[in-house]
Amino acid sequence: MSGGLGPTHDDITVEMVARATGRELVHDVALHRQIEQRSRVAAGRLGRPYSEFEPGVTKQATVPEGATVVGLSGTAPALIVECGACMVVTLPGPPRELQALWPAVLEVPDIRVILDRAHPAPRHVLRFYGVPESSVAAAIAAAGGEGADVTICARDFEIHVDIFEGDAGPRHAARLAHAIAQALPDYLYATTESTVEELVLASCAARGIRLATAESCTGGLIAERLTAIPGASEVFVGGVVAYADDVKAGILGVPADVLRTHGAVSAETALAMAHGARARLGVEVAVAVTGIAGPGGATDGKPVGLVFLHAVGPRGDRSAVLDVPGDRETIRRRAATAALHLCRTLVTES
Amino acid sequence: MSGGLGPTHDDITVEMVARATGRELVHDVALHRQIEQRSRVAAGRLGRPYSEFEPGVTKQATVPEGATVVGLSGTAPALIVECGACMVVTLPGPPRELQALWPAVLEVPDIRVILDRAHPAPRHVLRFYGVPESSVAAAIAAAGGEGADVTICARDFEIHVDIFEGDAGPRHAARLAHAIAQALPDYLYATTESTVEELVLASCAARGIRLATAESCTGGLIAERLTAIPGASEVFVGGVVAYADDVKAGILGVPADVLRTHGAVSAETALAMAHGARARLGVEVAVAVTGIAGPGGATDGKPVGLVFLHAVGPRGDRSAVLDVPGDRETIRRRAATAALHLCRTLVTES
Repeated sequence: MSGGLGPTHDDITVEMVARATGRELVHDVALHRQIEQRSRVAAGRLGRPYSEFEPGVTKQATVPEGATVVGLSGTAPALIVECGACMVVTLPGPPRELQALWPAVLEVPDIRVILDRAHPAPRHVLRFYGVPESSVAAAIAAAGGEGADVTICARDFEIHVDIFEGDAGPRHAARLAHAIAQALPDYLYATTESTVEELVLASCAARGIRLATAESCTGGLIAERLTAIPGASEVFVGGVVAYADDVKAGILGVPADVLRTHGAVSAETALAMAHGARARLGVEVAVAVTGIAGPGGATDGKPVGLVFLHAVGPRGDRSAVLDVPGDRETIRRRAATAALHLCRTLVTES
Repeated sequence: MSGGLGPTHDDITVEMVARATGRELVHDVALHRQIEQRSRVAAGRLGRPYSEFEPGVTKQATVPEGATVVGLSGTAPALIVECGACMVVTLPGPPRELQALWPAVLEVPDIRVILDRAHPAPRHVLRFYGVPESSVAAAIAAAGGEGADVTICARDFEIHVDIFEGDAGPRHAARLAHAIAQALPDYLYATTESTVEELVLASCAARGIRLATAESCTGGLIAERLTAIPGASEVFVGGVVAYADDVKAGILGVPADVLRTHGAVSAETALAMAHGARARLGVEVAVAVTGIAGPGGATDGKPVGLVFLHAVGPRGDRSAVLDVPGDRETIRRRAATAALHLCRTLVTES
């Protein structure tokens, strides 16, 4: 979105396209009128004089000669410039604006022919959790997937396998996916691109379970990931970020002697946090995380990367202890992922 | 990090470099021994047989002929392949592994000469908040910055301006930065790349203030951003993600009649959440957010994007109401940024 005089990414893109296609930059009067109309509304909304917007409007309405205006998102246009056998589509950078204009781009004659050539190959996805990448790689090799169109990617304890229908065809890909899945049934958690937070929310919703979180080292990351999903409020009632010991004790009711005897980073504190969250937030399932994200905070016997997880549900508890190598961001991200998977198994398997 | 048989990004990169530089792929026995040693430790830690790791080790030790091994991060090597006047450096993709190996790369003879040629231009940064992009663009133009090496980028209500020392030289850039800053003194919040969460934590720390959050629609995002900063625990004691009304009432003490009369998304609820968090978490400053992130949840007079913010400190309160266009992710991100800026001004200006 560019409303300014300074060069923005949009301006630079339009200039580059003009140069690359050998066109002059011209002022499109009809486009100007459209953008002006919207800018006047925005100016009113912001309580600013329209004159401040005028130079930005002129800039947005300056396009390579012969460009077709496909549509507007806010004040940013989507343009098409044809150049020999090529067709250049310029879109505003912000994902929301780009996505809003995409359907209009698809209406442009010939564009579908071009896009069809760039169609992504159909594929099967397998998502594993809690198994080393090397074991998944071994399963791929045993299934005859070596050298085939199979990619494997480790992401925060999850192993993502994508099997593409390459030269060998769809039947081979399906057979391969089946064989790999069969080899590691205990670790396979999805055959779609659903994230673990989506799966947790869906599993809880299907069972009428409400969920709460109690986070120390992850600092709100688990709650943030859950609430990023539209409709999370049907399942997730809230959480406590209990960073200081006083908050663990005061808000979650972790007994002072547990904190004193075992420390804030301990299996006992994780358990008390989860049970406290469950009782005080009035839910069926609660998950708690406490650990040392670093770089400071390590003590004798409690190194950076040590994380305790605890989940409690109507039919029992599950806990885990992690020893995560890496920096603060990695430790927090992996601890959050592990907590969500602990929740998932508690809800779906008990 | 590749420990597998399936093709990973590392494998693909190494293969591509071999092909591009016209080298054969060869098995490096010395490298194999190094990686094997580390993999045996990892296997022990994971309680898996080393044999599962062996094929991965062989793969990691397979490199373009004549490649120099610069170092290892985990089991992933950094390699240098020379090709005529070019020098190709391959590094593992995960940022942590890449960063760990970078110092070793800098020790390679001639590499500094190559990097010096790619040195980024020195620049001044100006960070504004709470002013339209068009006003900042107008200030840039008035200062004579149009056409100069000035970029402007709007990011969640923040306007980031970078002034590069281009052809006009360092004195011109400094003069330009000064003039732009002078034009909008009330909106300038940083002349460094510090994020607002870093500034909030530093301002609180300097004043001996402790901080808490109370979040509804942002779902933990503010707490997450604060706790992503190492040392946050010196200032931030914790927060409550109060998604359901029961949690707003039970944990934060929002009066039932406030929720009933004004609704969960209201200035009154935001105020009660902030005051509740301040009292119950025992801090000097608390900030609260409640709003409608969408896509559902809109009611008559309360559209998606309506967000109420409230911050309370020892010397008074500040509040704001936002009307954020955009999708769920944008609304949450902008609401969190606005809440952090509200906190910043409360702490630094009162």
